[in-house]
Amino acid sequence: MKIKHYLLTLFLLLTTQVYLSAKALNSWKNGSSKQAIIEFVETAVDPANDGFIPESERIAVFDNDGTLWAEKPLYFQALFAFDQIRSMAPEHPEWQTEEPYASILKGDIEGALHDGEEALIKLVLASHSGMTTKGFKDMVGDWLASATHPSTGRAYTEMVYQPMLELLDYLRANNFKTFIVSGGGIDFMRVFSEAVYGIPPEQVIGSRVRADYTLVNGEPVFHRKAELGFINDKAGKPVGILEHIGRRPVMAFGNSDGDFQMLEWVTAGEGSRLGLLVHHTDEKREWAYDRESHVGSLNRGLDEAAERDWILVDMKKDWRRVFPR
Amino acid sequence: MKIKHYLLTLFLLLTTQVYLSAKALNSWKNGSSKQAIIEFVETAVDPANDGFIPESERIAVFDNDGTLWAEKPLYFQALFAFDQIRSMAPEHPEWQTEEPYASILKGDIEGALHDGEEALIKLVLASHSGMTTKGFKDMVGDWLASATHPSTGRAYTEMVYQPMLELLDYLRANNFKTFIVSGGGIDFMRVFSEAVYGIPPEQVIGSRVRADYTLVNGEPVFHRKAELGFINDKAGKPVGILEHIGRRPVMAFGNSDGDFQMLEWVTAGEGSRLGLLVHHTDEKREWAYDRESHVGSLNRGLDEAAERDWILVDMKKDWRRVFPR
Repeated sequence: MKIKHYLLTLFLLLTTQVYLSAKALNSWKNGSSKQAIIEFVETAVDPANDGFIPESERIAVFDNDGTLWAEKPLYFQALFAFDQIRSMAPEHPEWQTEEPYASILKGDIEGALHDGEEALIKLVLASHSGMTTKGFKDMVGDWLASATHPSTGRAYTEMVYQPMLELLDYLRANNFKTFIVSGGGIDFMRVFSEAVYGIPPEQVIGSRVRADYTLVNGEPVFHRKAELGFINDKAGKPVGILEHIGRRPVMAFGNSDGDFQMLEWVTAGEGSRLGLLVHHTDEKREWAYDRESHVGSLNRGLDEAAERDWILVDMKKDWRRVFPR
Repeated sequence: MKIKHYLLTLFLLLTTQVYLSAKALNSWKNGSSKQAIIEFVETAVDPANDGFIPESERIAVFDNDGTLWAEKPLYFQALFAFDQIRSMAPEHPEWQTEEPYASILKGDIEGALHDGEEALIKLVLASHSGMTTKGFKDMVGDWLASATHPSTGRAYTEMVYQPMLELLDYLRANNFKTFIVSGGGIDFMRVFSEAVYGIPPEQVIGSRVRADYTLVNGEPVFHRKAELGFINDKAGKPVGILEHIGRRPVMAFGNSDGDFQMLEWVTAGEGSRLGLLVHHTDEKREWAYDRESHVGSLNRGLDEAAERDWILVDMKKDWRRVFPR
């Protein structure tokens, strides 16, 4: 009688778990990508398995642009910067003639970014500094609440990937701590990371401007300065992780060569490791791009994913749906 | 019958909680400091109370030197640096004549630090850079395992304050997230923070040197450079908290004027707030020092604690015991 009861309980537990895993990753089609993720997690949480990972080491890092939400036609934070430049323009008459601001004000984004990353950094610095952290947070919140994507007309926070939201939930349900590790601005992402991804601000790592702590009329405030404090991209990602987390994660998720070193470091560690790249292959439901794209370009990752045993997610084939609705 | 059962359960729950709180802070004498802490926490976790704090906002920050462990005769990390300087000296013949190294090698610490903080930073940089992060971690681990305190003969990790260990546990039992926010080196503290304080590396904030990510023989490594990346002290503490946590904590614990701005910022927020300074008043069981001390000097905090409603812990009167044994 007792053994029967035990077996029944075991059976229920096992079937419940398989059911929950399958249900948890409902927007992932059955296939090698989904299977590899589930196998990794089920191994990691099984104390009897060699691939068991103690809870304190269950750290998973996610790139943001192109991995958790879309990044076309351009990083959403850049679109935010351009909108801010336009609304700040009346206080900056010099921008009418000075590049790259002048091009933005004329609506010529391509012209503004012609000289590459340097122009983008200028535009981001000009629009992301000079205010308090509280003021900046409000600006981002207002923009996210009202701005819409140029081609889909959706709010930007609706352009997150449903399969990745399910993956975040699934990992947390198995006691993984989920972090964002993005080239994007840390204070920009922290405005929505908890509400949209369930990732609290202290688990967001990104690029940042310097800030000063001072008192204004006896009230503590932080002033954002037009100085880059850290660029959390490429070889900067492992450094940003080291600063914030202080140990090597066991899972890393990205989509571009900006994530290469992060995946390289994470998957070079001992024990169970998982690296995954989202390959944008779906020109109908999202966008199809890789090697030649000016955002999220994926070259080395595409060449080396197989030999490095990284999962290459084929968005078109692996995902039942892309966006939540 | 049902109501009787309910009342009994309620009674047991209440008495258990009071008992647990009292037991949890066993090394705190009953008095205003202990009572203020318990009242704050019991209010924070009570959804019916105006002072309720949602779990995600329950963030408590602790200074390390002089707040969680002792700091006399000098910051323990400085003593570590001097030991490293001595063992690295054979590879640096120039240190025999160059200050402040020469004084350290002669055993004249006072002479070495005569010119103040700059000399200390030089000594720390020289002993904390040039190796990989892995190499540094091993150095710190070896030192902590073998070095002993010059006057007590104890291991440094035994010179932690028992009442503060109990406080950390008590806060975590009430779903507070505990962080270290110290002027000390982030990578130095991360070696022992989890084992000694139960604080994982990702919840340690401190000063740091810059590090580079590179491959050596195909293996990813971080090289520590002789460049200060951030000094997490005074007005730098709120900035460090903002970078790492991204929101204002609700409790702050310190012992010196290096913690002033951290307590100022934390306690200036809306809703329930708690600031606490440990006042070193116990010349028998520990050390007695405040305004004139060359480490952990406490002037402004002592002057303003009362008007700012910060708890001033009198080590001699408030603590039943100081060290675990």
